[in-house]
Amino acid sequence: MKLRIGIVGATGIVGSELITLIAERGTPVGTLRLFASEKSGGKKVPFGEDLVIVEKLESRKLTNFDYLFFCSNEGVSREFLPTAAANGICCIDNSAAFRERGDVPLVVPEINSHALAEHKNVIANPNCSTIITLMAIFPLHVAFGLKKFCATTYQAVSGVGCSGIEALNRAIDGNHAMSEEIFGEQILFNAVPKVGKFFANGYTSEEMKMLNESRRILGFPDLRVSSTCVRIPAMRAHSISVIAEFERSFDLCVAQRILRENEHVDYFPGTSFPSAIERTKKDRVGVGRLRVDTFFDNGATMWVVGDQIRKGAALNALQIMELLEFQKCKSTPIPLVVQDVRAKTMPSSG
Amino acid sequence: MKLRIGIVGATGIVGSELITLIAERGTPVGTLRLFASEKSGGKKVPFGEDLVIVEKLESRKLTNFDYLFFCSNEGVSREFLPTAAANGICCIDNSAAFRERGDVPLVVPEINSHALAEHKNVIANPNCSTIITLMAIFPLHVAFGLKKFCATTYQAVSGVGCSGIEALNRAIDGNHAMSEEIFGEQILFNAVPKVGKFFANGYTSEEMKMLNESRRILGFPDLRVSSTCVRIPAMRAHSISVIAEFERSFDLCVAQRILRENEHVDYFPGTSFPSAIERTKKDRVGVGRLRVDTFFDNGATMWVVGDQIRKGAALNALQIMELLEFQKCKSTPIPLVVQDVRAKTMPSSG
Repeated sequence: MKLRIGIVGATGIVGSELITLIAERGTPVGTLRLFASEKSGGKKVPFGEDLVIVEKLESRKLTNFDYLFFCSNEGVSREFLPTAAANGICCIDNSAAFRERGDVPLVVPEINSHALAEHKNVIANPNCSTIITLMAIFPLHVAFGLKKFCATTYQAVSGVGCSGIEALNRAIDGNHAMSEEIFGEQILFNAVPKVGKFFANGYTSEEMKMLNESRRILGFPDLRVSSTCVRIPAMRAHSISVIAEFERSFDLCVAQRILRENEHVDYFPGTSFPSAIERTKKDRVGVGRLRVDTFFDNGATMWVVGDQIRKGAALNALQIMELLEFQKCKSTPIPLVVQDVRAKTMPSSG
Repeated sequence: MKLRIGIVGATGIVGSELITLIAERGTPVGTLRLFASEKSGGKKVPFGEDLVIVEKLESRKLTNFDYLFFCSNEGVSREFLPTAAANGICCIDNSAAFRERGDVPLVVPEINSHALAEHKNVIANPNCSTIITLMAIFPLHVAFGLKKFCATTYQAVSGVGCSGIEALNRAIDGNHAMSEEIFGEQILFNAVPKVGKFFANGYTSEEMKMLNESRRILGFPDLRVSSTCVRIPAMRAHSISVIAEFERSFDLCVAQRILRENEHVDYFPGTSFPSAIERTKKDRVGVGRLRVDTFFDNGATMWVVGDQIRKGAALNALQIMELLEFQKCKSTPIPLVVQDVRAKTMPSSG
């Protein structure tokens, strides 16, 4: 069965990547319609050998779809998604609009695919840094039982969209005004410890997403997470320094084998490591510099890098659709990179 | 009494900064002689209103000094320092050559000035990231009793010297060869989790310095430190995300007051924070984003930034000399930014 797919925010950085991925992964597309704001309406976007005309987003147009991907901001999702979902369309939302709602599954297919069983046509795609971090932690959690973790990020400018890339390119040419406006400070030659907005407790929205979304995805409501999120002058792919403490005795050799054999991550042994440049446009999260932590008795430290536009956003959203299709018909030819790990997602204790 | 001062490695990034600081701080200089490798011999370097000719480094020239500052690499310090020290000259070494020797004090004047009492003409200046990190942790350690800490760094390219700045400038012009050679990977638009060389335990030399030197400076031989050191495309000033766990109950309001009132750091309240661009060429370490950690029961998280060429190297070395002169004659007019905190440097327990 060919799928009727719509993409809202199709000209943005995540929407564009999603179109590329749908073509790359051989998704069986019957209809592909692209929506954006008025100023992008009429643009022609290549899809395989065709050109698809971008339509101005209007509520009445969001009918006759199997899946709608929302790749715009929270406001657009809040305005347009509920009606489409109520009309029976399965909506996969990249924004943070519905992530904290108990009746909306927040899903990383390789981790908590079971959460999809209860969806009511609204599925939230988690925060990019959180997805990338958990892709590395989860296989070790299954083996050793996660107790707490700390994530310190090095996030690329494209996290804010195409404008971040334009701002950094202008800064390279000596004009810092646009980057100062977007990031609150010059981004070239700098590290800015503010991603998102500040809350009263001194944490930023990005840091609180790492805490709250990790708890939901792992099904671990009292998990302790410490996070510092920092923007650096990288164009694409987020790097994250992770320390994890486990319930059970951490064995480095076992952990190395687990990550090496895990088909969802690329493991870098010895003194090799992934980096933002190296991971750009790659599907898998890279994990390197795995070592015994000097802080905790059962701790591990590692360096985790992922393309936040692919696995951190567009790819994860598309995998959610692939998983739903797979669950409908186990013989579907859609290329799946998921496994059901429901039985393993509960921590051993705590 | 005017001082006879020599600088070995005077044309490097730390040596040049030291010359600037000696002029800026009104150090009472009788003689200033500058030494460098043969290729810099004969260069003229401005000092106040004079020009000082750089001499080719030779062992026989290192006599008739009160202080010699070694601002070159470990090899140069190992070759030339011991003879000068044996001849009665007080040698302050910026390299890592003697930092682990039990009979060589490793000193941050604001933290462990008492260690100078036992010096035998060789004093080691600590690693730059370690100095900057401890400047923020120490006042809180005095109040709450440090138990362990975690430091995740964002280090500038000038940490390797002038060549790091040249390499990043070339990369901006599209030529990545020099930065790839120095940093092992493209540095522009990237974060490279390797500073120094790898050890068998998976940690780098920079990370092990953070552990070993912190233990020596704080007089805390079993302190637990977790560190991940990362090079980013910043020109100057190292940023460090720090989590500290304390023995005693951590009170945020008390901690804010302690840092605000501490004359050795610049405290950034609320949602303000220091950054690499903002701290460049500033003497003081900046501390911001202080908040209660979500990881530990008595933990604090903060964002610490310091100019690694000033407080991380040249300034700290010069302060060591100022402190020694101050201890000789309490009425010296040398501008001091030090305090004796000997009684407070032992942890409350652990």
